[in-house]
Amino acid sequence: MVAGFVSLVGAGPGDPELWTLRALRRVQEADLVLYDALVDASVLRGLTRAQCFCVGKRAGRASVQQETVNRLMIRAAGRGKRVVRLKGGDPFVFGRGAEETQALALAGVPFEVVPGVTTAVAAAGLAGIPVTHRGVSSGFLVLAGQTGEGLNRALDAVGPNTVTLVVMMGIHARVEIARRLMERGWQGGTPTAVVCGASTPQAWTWTGTLGELGSVEPPGELPGVLVVGDVVALRDVLAAGQASPAAEAR
Amino acid sequence: MVAGFVSLVGAGPGDPELWTLRALRRVQEADLVLYDALVDASVLRGLTRAQCFCVGKRAGRASVQQETVNRLMIRAAGRGKRVVRLKGGDPFVFGRGAEETQALALAGVPFEVVPGVTTAVAAAGLAGIPVTHRGVSSGFLVLAGQTGEGLNRALDAVGPNTVTLVVMMGIHARVEIARRLMERGWQGGTPTAVVCGASTPQAWTWTGTLGELGSVEPPGELPGVLVVGDVVALRDVLAAGQASPAAEAR
Repeated sequence: MVAGFVSLVGAGPGDPELWTLRALRRVQEADLVLYDALVDASVLRGLTRAQCFCVGKRAGRASVQQETVNRLMIRAAGRGKRVVRLKGGDPFVFGRGAEETQALALAGVPFEVVPGVTTAVAAAGLAGIPVTHRGVSSGFLVLAGQTGEGLNRALDAVGPNTVTLVVMMGIHARVEIARRLMERGWQGGTPTAVVCGASTPQAWTWTGTLGELGSVEPPGELPGVLVVGDVVALRDVLAAGQASPAAEAR
Repeated sequence: MVAGFVSLVGAGPGDPELWTLRALRRVQEADLVLYDALVDASVLRGLTRAQCFCVGKRAGRASVQQETVNRLMIRAAGRGKRVVRLKGGDPFVFGRGAEETQALALAGVPFEVVPGVTTAVAAAGLAGIPVTHRGVSSGFLVLAGQTGEGLNRALDAVGPNTVTLVVMMGIHARVEIARRLMERGWQGGTPTAVVCGASTPQAWTWTGTLGELGSVEPPGELPGVLVVGDVVALRDVLAAGQASPAAEAR
């Protein structure tokens, strides 16, 4: 019987204010926090007396192997610790959350999943782009921009210009994605956005067309989301009105 | 020049602990909160001294017209009020958030969008179903289950058994959805789930196959999400390990 407990917690797109109340509580009560590179370490350490280890990629260093992360969680829980596995976005949206919970379940470690604000929806929304809009888009497909056959199969799954397409971590494959979609019949003029570093002070947004996507040069190494579909054109209206309430209040 | 401010805030799937920290802060600082029926009114009133009005459907009463909601927000902001428009899930996932922000932008009212935990991902996750999983599902399509031609077009957008399908508010159209998907080539044996009232004490989950979906009888009038795809089969492993940390602690 394992006395400890693991919480797989989604930390949202980056801004700590987009943590859920439960995420905050679990981190405050934790003995050990294993966090991804997307989580702001200085904020994290200010919130908890738990031991905090970064298991994601950091400048010049590879990420910790998935099996090592699993072993760390299982061992700490076996010693009665309250473990938080803190992940960017939502744990089950391309976060390997399923792999980690499978490992925990097989090891007999009790766990919970604390959903987070997924970057798939929030990156677009914070840039003034609604992923759905009545009469414009009646659905959205979320993919990950890993290259190769997997990506092509995923891009081919949906009919051209039918729903909004959101490609997470899609920056590096932007040339390939644009070409593949247009070969499949997506119109070159389809409104398209790139949103990098959503909800952080470094947030950067580009909008243009699918035909222009391949030539965009996003700044630095920020994680980025591609959004393809007519909803992107709504940004012209929505971004104009979007403001910070703090600025308004002063 | 409008002195007030409107925050369109996502309240997540239902449990107030899945609000974001920013959502809580905006509600605490608000003068007026216009909330949907999915938000727990008693919790809300305990958190704020703002005037709170339900503009969603309530037992036996229709929801307030969209134009009325827009007018209420614009008028209050014009009087210098801090308005929170509190919506279930995320404001831009089938929440008419785009319509409301368009109305605000056109009226010259400054606003912000505060993303929330979308029920599309959280309902599945809380039931032990990851919407993505390496080697099983490389993407997910989110649709809304309004009936008629719009729904069929959306269901037809995606190739059979290619990605995970999440249909929000899909309970009423479950017979039609199952039939349409199988006509389009989805296998009748595809693992399928219905999750109602996710994150609330009334949460109810059914799992079976697409071929069985039409004959499911969900309890009561809870909002429900359908999940179709091989990831649903992971629930057998994951749900076994899922527990409440509170229960573990006692």
